[in-house]
Amino acid sequence: MLDNQPSTMFATLDTPSVLIDLDVAERNVIRFQSFANKAKISVRPHIKTHKLPRLAKAQIKAGAVGITCQKISEAEVMANAGLDDILITYNILSASKLDRLNRLASKIKLTVVADNHTVIEGLSAAFSNTGPLRVLVECDTGAGRCGVQTPEAACEIAQRINKTTGLKFGGLMTYPPTDKEIETQKWLTDAQRACLNTGLRVDTISTGGTPGIWKADQVPIATEYRPGTYIYNDRSLVTRSTAAWDDCALTVLATVISTPTETRAIIDAGSKVLTSDLLGMDGYGYAVGHPNLTIHALSEEHGIMRSKAPHKLSVGQRVRIIPNHVCVVTNMMDRITLLRGKKIEGEEIVAARGCVT
Amino acid sequence: MLDNQPSTMFATLDTPSVLIDLDVAERNVIRFQSFANKAKISVRPHIKTHKLPRLAKAQIKAGAVGITCQKISEAEVMANAGLDDILITYNILSASKLDRLNRLASKIKLTVVADNHTVIEGLSAAFSNTGPLRVLVECDTGAGRCGVQTPEAACEIAQRINKTTGLKFGGLMTYPPTDKEIETQKWLTDAQRACLNTGLRVDTISTGGTPGIWKADQVPIATEYRPGTYIYNDRSLVTRSTAAWDDCALTVLATVISTPTETRAIIDAGSKVLTSDLLGMDGYGYAVGHPNLTIHALSEEHGIMRSKAPHKLSVGQRVRIIPNHVCVVTNMMDRITLLRGKKIEGEEIVAARGCVT
Repeated sequence: MLDNQPSTMFATLDTPSVLIDLDVAERNVIRFQSFANKAKISVRPHIKTHKLPRLAKAQIKAGAVGITCQKISEAEVMANAGLDDILITYNILSASKLDRLNRLASKIKLTVVADNHTVIEGLSAAFSNTGPLRVLVECDTGAGRCGVQTPEAACEIAQRINKTTGLKFGGLMTYPPTDKEIETQKWLTDAQRACLNTGLRVDTISTGGTPGIWKADQVPIATEYRPGTYIYNDRSLVTRSTAAWDDCALTVLATVISTPTETRAIIDAGSKVLTSDLLGMDGYGYAVGHPNLTIHALSEEHGIMRSKAPHKLSVGQRVRIIPNHVCVVTNMMDRITLLRGKKIEGEEIVAARGCVT
Repeated sequence: MLDNQPSTMFATLDTPSVLIDLDVAERNVIRFQSFANKAKISVRPHIKTHKLPRLAKAQIKAGAVGITCQKISEAEVMANAGLDDILITYNILSASKLDRLNRLASKIKLTVVADNHTVIEGLSAAFSNTGPLRVLVECDTGAGRCGVQTPEAACEIAQRINKTTGLKFGGLMTYPPTDKEIETQKWLTDAQRACLNTGLRVDTISTGGTPGIWKADQVPIATEYRPGTYIYNDRSLVTRSTAAWDDCALTVLATVISTPTETRAIIDAGSKVLTSDLLGMDGYGYAVGHPNLTIHALSEEHGIMRSKAPHKLSVGQRVRIIPNHVCVVTNMMDRITLLRGKKIEGEEIVAARGCVT
């Protein structure tokens, strides 16, 4: 159980602080790696959750085949730290980004994605002399974000990549819809078949998403899985029973700064730490050990906690909060604190924080 | 009107970028300063919106009496840059924060707030040798965040401050409820009267909030106003008719990276730039020049735009977005770009970004 004694709780740390329990994080990594090993699916974790080279390396050490980044700037941070096999699951456009991509590809094993001809043309222009760059076709198997809309369109883009100077078709990639494993399996199977029918080999079929990790084996066509949040877990994943509270590695340490009424208490963590992400839930996090409290509203520096019965909190008391969505919380902090249980291991700079380009 | 030509729009800038039009920002500052001058109310802008010493200085130059910060770390950045009269509207607790507060008070004219005895005791212990520190009583006049609950309680806390070693009672402060000017005027008048009846002078009565700026004169008891967002404005303020689109100084420059369907387009600005703040609205911002588009959903690096009729956007095209809430957007960026109209003036580090302690 998490330590939630207000009097003894990390008195040396200033608040608000973001705490990472390495014991829990490492256990989460190993647990899914074992599951994936049994399912014979490679793991390529998304570093957007932790943004820390040391945890990316821990994931590799546990058996991951490489890492996933969303933006080039994240990949640059990770490559500089020694990570050498990176998939960027993002359509890359613009001369400056393509320059950076080219430099990155000269250092590491790099794969990117594309879902349209404009992106393919840009990649080709950048890699015609230095390629081939490995490109997966991004497929919209139902999540409604990026991606080609049909298996036939996936095959068409795959052929285009295959014919384009500087590029090499590497396979298919999807950010899949949640709880639609059968549909995703069918979509990807149809796309693979269409590619094979035109003589294209489909080496990689990459899927992901922590909500679906324990059903990764229900999309057996996939060759690799890209989980992100699984390393820390959060309130959204506990709410959907993907994880338990004890599997949550990230907590926000906050202080009660005001108790205006018996049923309202204010903490010093607002949307600048917890963020406004609701992910369909009510409230902005779970106050560990205080199931009677809701984090009812946030302004930038204030968290407004409410209770039906008197909360009995006092000014100066500390609370530990499991946020709704950990990936966005790590982006708010320049530094986080590493723990093992109740023992503070040290502070760590969030190296890939703020990487939006 | 804002430049929204996709072909010519700031081609030298990478996306996503946050752009600040200084002409618009300066006009906004001067407009409210003139209004406040006529209403005979001092202006003490909240720097949480811009987080930039240069704009804090511009606000002072326009006539502001000082600035407001929420956290000590913000005040430290501003004091180091030469701002010398700062109100921190936050209950300060903990030995490390009180140490920092003491150092800050030795350099500048500093005022803080308190709404409870624990905070007063901490401030007193820290300032018993170096004080007096000026303290306002934070009053909850209806917004339901921090603050004492009644005018009588305000008087009780004021007396306590007045009797406490190292501290000096400076007046009253509220973050007022929106559209409740009559109630706020009555609350503060009652509290002032209670204080005067016990022989306490009430020098400062500080209120604020950009939603109420054009009704600042309807709380005539207030001596100063603390607007934040007014310097940039945003979609929430246009929605409530506090500002017009042309008064919006901050825009997010983004690129269309995918057009999966005729009615869905994806941009490279997600919640890591625009944030998930809805402030009661639908959608995550206004795409300038595209009133038919909604920014329907965000993931961290993707903005999902939807339209009823075909959007006619193409991959690589740029869009300029007025976010729901600018204060949280400036906290997401290490650097922003300063403009005057269509002319780029340069890049600026967001000096007080990420200041949560």
